[in-house]
Amino acid sequence: MQYQFSEVINELKPSFIREILKLTVKPEIISFAGGLPDPSLFPHQSIKEASNAMFDRNDRSIFQYTTTEGHAGLREWIAKRFSDTHNVEVSSDQVMIVSGSQQALDLFGKIYIDPQDAVVMEAPTYLGAIQAFRMYQPKFKEVELQEDGLDTDQFLATMQEEDSKFFYGIPNFQNPTGLTYSTQKRQQVADILQQTGKIMLEDDPYGALLFEEEGQSSPDTRPIYALAPDNVVYMGSFSKVFVPGFRLGWVIAPKPALAKMIIAKQAADLHTNSFVQELLYEYVTTHDLDAHIDLIRQTYATKKACMVQAINTYLGDEVELFPTSGGMFIWVRVPGVAIMDLLTVAIEKNVAFVPGEAFSLTGGYTDHMRLNFTSLEEDQIVEGVKRLKAALDAYRANQ
Amino acid sequence: MQYQFSEVINELKPSFIREILKLTVKPEIISFAGGLPDPSLFPHQSIKEASNAMFDRNDRSIFQYTTTEGHAGLREWIAKRFSDTHNVEVSSDQVMIVSGSQQALDLFGKIYIDPQDAVVMEAPTYLGAIQAFRMYQPKFKEVELQEDGLDTDQFLATMQEEDSKFFYGIPNFQNPTGLTYSTQKRQQVADILQQTGKIMLEDDPYGALLFEEEGQSSPDTRPIYALAPDNVVYMGSFSKVFVPGFRLGWVIAPKPALAKMIIAKQAADLHTNSFVQELLYEYVTTHDLDAHIDLIRQTYATKKACMVQAINTYLGDEVELFPTSGGMFIWVRVPGVAIMDLLTVAIEKNVAFVPGEAFSLTGGYTDHMRLNFTSLEEDQIVEGVKRLKAALDAYRANQ
Repeated sequence: MQYQFSEVINELKPSFIREILKLTVKPEIISFAGGLPDPSLFPHQSIKEASNAMFDRNDRSIFQYTTTEGHAGLREWIAKRFSDTHNVEVSSDQVMIVSGSQQALDLFGKIYIDPQDAVVMEAPTYLGAIQAFRMYQPKFKEVELQEDGLDTDQFLATMQEEDSKFFYGIPNFQNPTGLTYSTQKRQQVADILQQTGKIMLEDDPYGALLFEEEGQSSPDTRPIYALAPDNVVYMGSFSKVFVPGFRLGWVIAPKPALAKMIIAKQAADLHTNSFVQELLYEYVTTHDLDAHIDLIRQTYATKKACMVQAINTYLGDEVELFPTSGGMFIWVRVPGVAIMDLLTVAIEKNVAFVPGEAFSLTGGYTDHMRLNFTSLEEDQIVEGVKRLKAALDAYRANQ
Repeated sequence: MQYQFSEVINELKPSFIREILKLTVKPEIISFAGGLPDPSLFPHQSIKEASNAMFDRNDRSIFQYTTTEGHAGLREWIAKRFSDTHNVEVSSDQVMIVSGSQQALDLFGKIYIDPQDAVVMEAPTYLGAIQAFRMYQPKFKEVELQEDGLDTDQFLATMQEEDSKFFYGIPNFQNPTGLTYSTQKRQQVADILQQTGKIMLEDDPYGALLFEEEGQSSPDTRPIYALAPDNVVYMGSFSKVFVPGFRLGWVIAPKPALAKMIIAKQAADLHTNSFVQELLYEYVTTHDLDAHIDLIRQTYATKKACMVQAINTYLGDEVELFPTSGGMFIWVRVPGVAIMDLLTVAIEKNVAFVPGEAFSLTGGYTDHMRLNFTSLEEDQIVEGVKRLKAALDAYRANQ
């Protein structure tokens, strides 16, 4: 039997990096490669309480089909929280619940990309966004991410090009770099969007995970949506501040764009799980989500400090760290080292990371790696960094 | 702000029928238009028990990211149940959990349809499948559905055409007609698939909802997958036999096709909700799903009999009923009546149905309607049919 698959799916090659990373699930490996939240922080008991309260109401509609837009109360809660937090007016009919942020990437790709349209991406950028958009056969253009955000000169020139359809970016604690746009860069990006009449898909899974660190002022994490609401579709997620397994994210969008995304979502999966939408709504209206987020922030801040200290201790002279004060990742440059070769040695030494090339559209970042600090205990973080040092020594001995 | 949406989403017009049906949510309307399971049958107490057992194990992985393919135990359970029920060998690595059957339609469209490929559909066919496939810009071809299944002469000729890419069909208690393929037609379809080397997407949400009726032999509901496993991607669903709100369906596919669907699903939503997968697995391994399905079958059989009797009593001479012995719908022809006009009158009389045109790719079935019998109580069914009669009288008086 010959299967006549579509051109778009046939063009996707199995990822070499993904194949290598499959090796890293062995229990003896300390993996900095993942992007998993710390499972010990999942509010198991609170979810159980919310669940029982929900069951005790004996409301069968929690099991029934629901609307594509999602749970009315949850949409209202999201709109109010976003409006209050970010000092911008959003109504609940601008909110749609999605089956995780990844679905928002897919739906936005579907409503915006015609084949050969150009999607403007940060360099480096999030792997999952590349995967989602590729299904709609765009070209990609890169704009370099600097320590204070996008290279805005390059951004303006790129967005002015006729075929540039939209910009996808992660202004807060970016994946993979951990970098955050400055206040000035946020305003410049908003101005350029308005000036060129183009749209941004703003991905913000990590914005709430801001670490308060001694002697440092907190970065501005206000969404670019708040600066240019007609020009931004904003993506939020409960995966990093609550639990990822529920697959609950949301979008806030200008109404014409939301209307198209609703049509696309209805064709894609009718609606998001109604049971966990009700369960989440029960949780947020009876528990203190902000207190829970504070706990996550403190825990992650401690883990990040531990990783930075371990890197300074064991790898200090050999690497460059990019500054971050939130999120889940540290971006590390190992000047002059072929990072894919280092990964092969590292796996032999029972430690893993994601090589920089995974986040590049053009094969760049060949001496960078992304390290995750959220899913491991502190002793594992230190031991993993020691193994990285051993891997680097072995790599250099082989050169 | 001008939004530059993709060609495919701009081509989708708001549905006139959908707009009309929005009027039918008023509480005074008895709606035969829906496709909702009876919520009183949702196993609320059993799900609560399963949920508490799951929480008590204190396993945080129920909240964590999981694999795109889905819950290993659930996939194993589905493979074994399908193999045992249908006497065909399926392994768990041929099974993927999806976010409801609708997602399987979307993913299959994505991996199979290039623009201008022809998708072969039953006439009439399921509206949601048309919506899902349209996103990938195919042509459509229709093959007439007869009382014993497809017109197989027309099916052979159509599948032999070069541009016919795959066939989408619902062999059991079809939506909208309630019709079921005969044993002979199943074999003919399987033979034609093998002879033409083409693939079928077999949608089977209703197959388990078979009514045993006095004096009638039960129809054959064995999947066509069992007759031609290399040529069929099979879609199953928990929405009609458990609860729809969990958005849990599955596909069974030849391994090359499943591999492509996994890539497409990863880009679309990473994976299906891990929490409800674990909850469903807990339920099916500690409760008797078959006993629950028997209860649904008996309840729906009674409701269907009630509707048929009411139609025979009040509309007997004016309509033709198509035979069905399972599922959720009755397909009714009202010869010579313009069904869209009848719908307008019916809504004034506080009763609603879906007009036949909604299920046609070519504007056909203008004197047919689909009636749902699962979501109403028997007294509502009788009252609704009386209102249909009043609407028909008023319609005729205006001609």
